[in-house]
Amino acid sequence: MSEFAVTERSRVRRVPKRGAYDKETIYRILDEGLVCHVGLVEDAQPFVIPMSYARHGDTVILHGAPGSRLLKYVRAGHPVCVTVTLLDGLVLARSVYHHSMNYRSAVVFGRGRLIEAEREKLAALETLTEHILRGRWRDARRPTRQELDATAVVSIAIESASAKVRTGPPADDEADYGLPVWAGVLPIREQALAPVNDPRLRRDIPIPPAVADYRRTR
Amino acid sequence: MSEFAVTERSRVRRVPKRGAYDKETIYRILDEGLVCHVGLVEDAQPFVIPMSYARHGDTVILHGAPGSRLLKYVRAGHPVCVTVTLLDGLVLARSVYHHSMNYRSAVVFGRGRLIEAEREKLAALETLTEHILRGRWRDARRPTRQELDATAVVSIAIESASAKVRTGPPADDEADYGLPVWAGVLPIREQALAPVNDPRLRRDIPIPPAVADYRRTR
Repeated sequence: MSEFAVTERSRVRRVPKRGAYDKETIYRILDEGLVCHVGLVEDAQPFVIPMSYARHGDTVILHGAPGSRLLKYVRAGHPVCVTVTLLDGLVLARSVYHHSMNYRSAVVFGRGRLIEAEREKLAALETLTEHILRGRWRDARRPTRQELDATAVVSIAIESASAKVRTGPPADDEADYGLPVWAGVLPIREQALAPVNDPRLRRDIPIPPAVADYRRTR
Repeated sequence: MSEFAVTERSRVRRVPKRGAYDKETIYRILDEGLVCHVGLVEDAQPFVIPMSYARHGDTVILHGAPGSRLLKYVRAGHPVCVTVTLLDGLVLARSVYHHSMNYRSAVVFGRGRLIEAEREKLAALETLTEHILRGRWRDARRPTRQELDATAVVSIAIESASAKVRTGPPADDEADYGLPVWAGVLPIREQALAPVNDPRLRRDIPIPPAVADYRRTR
């Protein structure tokens, strides 16, 4: 299956032509993002919590302290929503009304379970680590048994998902194109700046190329 | 009041020393962000939707099409959660376990209402426009009566809120500082690139300085 079924839950209602349901589009967004926003409900009150995450096949992996309210909620199997948004630009139209943003967002619905088997847990932590920086699982000290016990990892099976994407220039009203107003797109990128050595870094250790030349897949 | 009461709903549970409840910290995050994630609930299913927004005093303003499911939900007065997250860096520790991110996030709880009075609606749209680009309300064509009717604007009164902030280098285990692993912070910034003129831009219109030198307040 390379396309998610369009369900009542996942259907893009506002500007449907911007919606997409194919895995390639959705997974590319999930794989580029660094922070997701997880939605949960307690007593009819929604909570939206930013989390580090990674996609692992058709699942989204989260981790944290075993006592974390969010992870307890997710591992209990309640329905959750995980959203990743990549802002690509400000769309500056001639009219206030047609101002917009260029973006790619993925909204994922599913239910979680706790990963208990050590081998699966290590694989999930490797995916989370590699998602942030490729090669880091090889370079950094791996988790000890004690650290593994102090980490809860949950896997959310993606039941349905949708992407929403806007690209391109503003779409002004025909009558406005002659107005003396600058219009266009101001591209926005999440970029890495120069790495900052840990104050206690050993002097003989250089900055690895993967850090110095850091880029998210685009 | 310059500090929000710490409630069961808003208390930062995980690493409480990173929590803050003062308006200055929370509002600075809200004022710097460009995209918020709004949480809502339908039949026990959470939804997390990315939205443009702006803070207006002690409220958060959202806008969109009058038929938008999210805006209908918010204007009905249901409890909502609005979260803004600014990613500041990847914290690369010597051990996988101590990897982290530097970030500033604000989680806001409140209830919305529809802004109906035309004067208040125009002021809210001005705040939304100026939040994206200072001076744009002056430069762009203002909304017509028809456009105003085609736009729903909601105001969410902030009932409680919290911020969570991590800064600084990794915190490795003492025994790991001697490991031959590079450690430090890779700073991440959402940056504007060179503006892209609309293909139909009048040739006599230069890029305004506010666009050419775009920066979010930091």
